[in-house]
Amino acid sequence: MADLSAAEFERLAREGVPYVGLLAVRVERFEPGRVDILLPFQPMLVRPGGTICGPAMMALADIALYGVVLSLVGRVELAVTTDLNIHFLHRARPADLLARGRLLRSGRTLVVGEVHIAPLGDDRPVAHATGTYILPPDGRMPPCTRREEAA
Amino acid sequence: MADLSAAEFERLAREGVPYVGLLAVRVERFEPGRVDILLPFQPMLVRPGGTICGPAMMALADIALYGVVLSLVGRVELAVTTDLNIHFLHRARPADLLARGRLLRSGRTLVVGEVHIAPLGDDRPVAHATGTYILPPDGRMPPCTRREEAA
Amino acid sequence: MADLSAAEFERLAREGVPYVGLLAVRVERFEPGRVDILLPFQPMLVRPGGTICGPAMMALADIALYGVVLSLVGRVELAVTTDLNIHFLHRARPADLLARGRLLRSGRTLVVGEVHIAPLGDDRPVAHATGTYILPPDGRMPPCTRREEAA
Amino acid sequence: MADLSAAEFERLAREGVPYVGLLAVRVERFEPGRVDILLPFQPMLVRPGGTICGPAMMALADIALYGVVLSLVGRVELAVTTDLNIHFLHRARPADLLARGRLLRSGRTLVVGEVHIAPLGDDRPVAHATGTYILPPDGRMPPCTRREEAA
Repeated sequence: MADLSAAEFERLAREGVPYVGLLAVRVERFEPGRVDILLPFQPMLVRPGGTICGPAMMALADIALYGVVLSLVGRVELAVTTDLNIHFLHRARPADLLARGRLLRSGRTLVVGEVHIAPLGDDRPVAHATGTYILPPDGRMPPCTRREEAA
Repeated sequence: MADLSAAEFERLAREGVPYVGLLAVRVERFEPGRVDILLPFQPMLVRPGGTICGPAMMALADIALYGVVLSLVGRVELAVTTDLNIHFLHRARPADLLARGRLLRSGRTLVVGEVHIAPLGDDRPVAHATGTYILPPDGRMPPCTRREEAA
Repeated sequence: MADLSAAEFERLAREGVPYVGLLAVRVERFEPGRVDILLPFQPMLVRPGGTICGPAMMALADIALYGVVLSLVGRVELAVTTDLNIHFLHRARPADLLARGRLLRSGRTLVVGEVHIAPLGDDRPVAHATGTYILPPDGRMPPCTRREEAA
Repeated sequence: MADLSAAEFERLAREGVPYVGLLAVRVERFEPGRVDILLPFQPMLVRPGGTICGPAMMALADIALYGVVLSLVGRVELAVTTDLNIHFLHRARPADLLARGRLLRSGRTLVVGEVHIAPLGDDRPVAHATGTYILPPDGRMPPCTRREEAA
């Protein structure tokens, strides 16, 4: 559906925002509505107590949601998050984390998705997030068509 | 109430997690239940479209909530976020951001707070967050007292 | 700003949905962006443990947010909630509850607000909610104007 | 694991709170960590626009989460919600709704779950919720054991 490849999205996720690019995420899957993002472990992500800090997981969840959105609509860089909710489930030991983003709802204006985060090769989740992205009105669809389904 | 100074919390916020430390936040206020954190503008925080990226604001909100918690209980570094919800309200133009964290509820186990984020000297908010921190059972209060108020 | 009175909104809140109407809420304040809603105590709202149940407070928060939205745009009944987040802060003893809804962000498409709920005459909050309403595209503003601010 | 049957939980969900009992939910599945709740359609749940109102779906999500918790710990009626986040995905046409609650994380103090809500026999979801319940300290496990895993 979208004219964006996994490699192109990975470049966007790594180069779009320098601070986020430091996370050096890898795109493991990039299908319409199903996007998996890997966060390689780095010592700079560790918080007191020896676990991976919350902000790194929030950034990872946001990248996965952004991927879900762009997997559907293509390179609409100006899509922005309107809300994000995250629950931290278990402490994340120092290891690569895999975020699996899935579409919950796609509309002309709003896209809602959810993200499960777990250590790679481990089923015990460390975080779960849901969030909404809003598409800019000057996106790819003709504006007066776009509005009809009204978010 | 807490035996932690603004300077000590600032050091914790800057040195506790290297990735978060890159944000170089400043503690502008540190009173029990009222903590203001400044995020100085840096070009590395800018996303496509020229605004400050969401993950930086989520990290800022989390720091402010952590500050609210530690302003009440002192240096309990192992306090961790259990949930965080954020709404992005307006695009954040490149400028310093001030996060004002306030206590909503303090208990033996759970502390809930909210955070308003706005550009410094500007009343138009760019984000609003709420979240919960959980205190470790081996915290500072005697455990059998702690449990009485039950979270 | 809105051509809707407190009395008209109260009628809407009581008669729009019969199940919600059973709550018999009263509109205590109805100004643009500031709406206070009173939930009179009723025994049917009590849960095991003798406190007011969560669903009643969630409904109350939703009504207050709906009021905030309609206080700004007038009688746009088809405005709908897209997300709602609530934290329960203290157990709510059997008493009237006052929900104070406040605007966080107003746009052409999305309106975000927050709600503090506390027993009447008591400052200790029992719940805090934030949420988003989306305005229908066939609302009151000319559609091609509406889209400009892009949600 | 829990000494509570589907029938007993259904009675609790219908009789625990009279206002919630009006929803007349049915428990369709009650296994540890997997609980499905049916909300039969009733005209009193319809909002302007002819769809099912948000508060009914929020109550349904809360019941499903409560079920997930009690499916694990048994009849701990004093378990209470600490936070709930819901996204409304599509308008819910007048029809029975099925809420599928699933465990995300179980601890000594906090239990986190998620709920997918869709019309019965329809895969298109109308809402998705996540939330946390807190178990009372005077629950079934010895208190000094309970605290060890500390939420």
